[in-house]
Amino acid sequence: MTPRIEADYLIETAFPLAEAAAAVAREQSLGAYTGATGPNPPRTGALGSLTAQEARCARVMARIEALDDLGPVAAPALPGSHNRAGAHRRASLTLSWPVESVGTTLPAVMTTVAGNLFERPECSGLKLTAIRLPRRFASTAPGPAFGITGTRRLMGVEGRPLLGAIIKPSVGYTPEETAEVAGLLCAAGVDFIKDDALQTDSRICPFEERVRAVLERVDEHAQRTGHRVMVAFNLTGAVDEMRARHDTVLEHGGTCVMVSLGAVGLTGLEALRRHSQLPIHGDRAGWGAVDRHPLLGIAFPAMQTIWRLAGCDHLTLNGFANSLTEPDTSVVRSARALTLPLWPDLPMTAMPVLSSGQTALTVPATWASLQSPELIFAAGGGIMTHPDGPGAGVTALREAFEAVMAGTPLAVYASKRPALAAALAAAGAARA
Amino acid sequence: MTPRIEADYLIETAFPLAEAAAAVAREQSLGAYTGATGPNPPRTGALGSLTAQEARCARVMARIEALDDLGPVAAPALPGSHNRAGAHRRASLTLSWPVESVGTTLPAVMTTVAGNLFERPECSGLKLTAIRLPRRFASTAPGPAFGITGTRRLMGVEGRPLLGAIIKPSVGYTPEETAEVAGLLCAAGVDFIKDDALQTDSRICPFEERVRAVLERVDEHAQRTGHRVMVAFNLTGAVDEMRARHDTVLEHGGTCVMVSLGAVGLTGLEALRRHSQLPIHGDRAGWGAVDRHPLLGIAFPAMQTIWRLAGCDHLTLNGFANSLTEPDTSVVRSARALTLPLWPDLPMTAMPVLSSGQTALTVPATWASLQSPELIFAAGGGIMTHPDGPGAGVTALREAFEAVMAGTPLAVYASKRPALAAALAAAGAARA
Repeated sequence: MTPRIEADYLIETAFPLAEAAAAVAREQSLGAYTGATGPNPPRTGALGSLTAQEARCARVMARIEALDDLGPVAAPALPGSHNRAGAHRRASLTLSWPVESVGTTLPAVMTTVAGNLFERPECSGLKLTAIRLPRRFASTAPGPAFGITGTRRLMGVEGRPLLGAIIKPSVGYTPEETAEVAGLLCAAGVDFIKDDALQTDSRICPFEERVRAVLERVDEHAQRTGHRVMVAFNLTGAVDEMRARHDTVLEHGGTCVMVSLGAVGLTGLEALRRHSQLPIHGDRAGWGAVDRHPLLGIAFPAMQTIWRLAGCDHLTLNGFANSLTEPDTSVVRSARALTLPLWPDLPMTAMPVLSSGQTALTVPATWASLQSPELIFAAGGGIMTHPDGPGAGVTALREAFEAVMAGTPLAVYASKRPALAAALAAAGAARA
Repeated sequence: MTPRIEADYLIETAFPLAEAAAAVAREQSLGAYTGATGPNPPRTGALGSLTAQEARCARVMARIEALDDLGPVAAPALPGSHNRAGAHRRASLTLSWPVESVGTTLPAVMTTVAGNLFERPECSGLKLTAIRLPRRFASTAPGPAFGITGTRRLMGVEGRPLLGAIIKPSVGYTPEETAEVAGLLCAAGVDFIKDDALQTDSRICPFEERVRAVLERVDEHAQRTGHRVMVAFNLTGAVDEMRARHDTVLEHGGTCVMVSLGAVGLTGLEALRRHSQLPIHGDRAGWGAVDRHPLLGIAFPAMQTIWRLAGCDHLTLNGFANSLTEPDTSVVRSARALTLPLWPDLPMTAMPVLSSGQTALTVPATWASLQSPELIFAAGGGIMTHPDGPGAGVTALREAFEAVMAGTPLAVYASKRPALAAALAAAGAARA
């Protein structure tokens, strides 16, 4: 049997479940077509007989692969739905589509699995939770060029999480000031530095000048230590601008570029990927708009499939016990999703990037949940505010991961390690 | 004073309002920077003194321009927020940013006004409701090349709404079958036809073959009647594919191209606009993911500003009494937003496209709310299911608009017009 495009949903409805599922399936394949039985459309010429029209519809109709009742809920999650069955219930739903009617581009897939179904009046909640694509998409979409392995090779770091920082304040520094902060971070021993998503190209901090100034410090540090810090430069802009900025980064010896995924969009990301010779750091800034509500929008594990296929080598998440609203259960699901293979022979995994309020204190939960060193741990606050300075901040994070990877409690490991001890004390005080 | 980038929000919080507003403003400018008073960052070299750092932050910090209490609500709209003040309240908030730190590209604007603020724990709800940009964006963003005037000129229709249809079923027809339906719609007298958002390029219906077959019928009809029907071909795909498909449409004498906005994204849209010689029909398929919840995401009146600037000539909405969940209050707000000028001397208005369950019966509410003929009324169901065939369907819609524009009740106008009378009876029966 030909493999089909599949998507999973969490739905909520006060209709009989099968009826709600059928309405969603119909919306995303036949649309508002009122059926082959009426005069719509008149059956002339190429349109043929009623039977032909029915066969045509049956061929492309989205198929309900699974529908499981998850039980009743007290009240509808979203306004605007109709009520046909009294109680609102939740259900998990899997739909599938034939590739022959959808096509093989990622935007066509997204319109199909995440179109106007969000507004179906049968549903008082609908969230896209997973997307699975036939293997043939591996030849039409580029996928990550570097991934986890390529990123580690460029950094020269193996066997432990990569430690990094987002430059803060998000905006405000000139190129020279940005370079000064980058230089401090290099000297402190980080593996990775990134622009904030808010920092693109502006009069205060022009892109090209920033790249030149920052990479000068990175070069100096590399010559001194042999360790080339990876800097993700945020080249978010129009397609031609992004390509030109990529070339600037490459010319100056940079090893990573970054895009704000929501703002750039899928085709801009793919256009950059087709041009790029560097890893692409995908920042999901603004992601809360589609994923903060548990019963509306797109769950990150679904979207990351598409972003990986479009070419992201790294993808940002929140971290554990983060300073935003995402619960740890969602963080762990998202991080794990990135390292699950898209296909057994072609994993296309991407590097999870954890950030937002991360310190040595959040390391144990991170390790306990993920049990993997394959992550970038961006903890600029934890590094920069260490009482003994940024160098001690990086040392403390490295020690924290050594401890958890060896199965040693942080407090025990810290007893003879002053940098870690001071970091734990400072982070604990800040939380209190 | 230099004009600033401005955005309006509806927020909900159980923090003191000023504190919540400051947290949102900080998130979208300084980010998680912990302040100039601590050791973050160490003040060496170019970073200068504490005073210099404070001045740097003050210069780029998002400014609270307005904050108005809208009163308490019984329960938080979204999960995950913290509580500092007991009752949850709603408020309207206006923030502003200097262009010198944000930059002048649309993706940079979007990351700034719609970034991680959706996940701030101070907010149990946050919706972006409006965006206003300084006049200089008119020279960095392309804007619509055709708009309402250019679209009417290409169609040769003035003084009344443009009547059209989306081809349904959304997918399933071959190019020849699609052309057969398009031919029926031309003969019925429509002004406008469009592909469904689900129809891009597939084995069942390859893009180029579809364009060739459909435009052959459009040509025949134009030669017979002098009336060239506008067809919006959905060229959604990768950037290079979209440009090539645009050229195909142009070569075959087509007069419009269409993109699925959410799936393509902002930079893909802008890249197409820079290349295009035809009006761009922007379809917001999937919009419900960010706008169905009243307290989360992006309201259409905010997003349409950016889509117009990026080059959309038409933008799809739902219609009045639509078959999805959007209430009429939202439809009217969205439709009006499209025809409000972005700047007094440079309106950049776009054509509203109303669809979803539209029939002669929904014409009076449409006219009463908008009082303007500047719209495309896509009512394929109403046209195709007219008891006397598609020709009578189009006649009925035209008569319905004649009636409301003349201030005549539909029933009165229908008394001597059998097409309208039959349409009203059929639509009334379907609603009952």
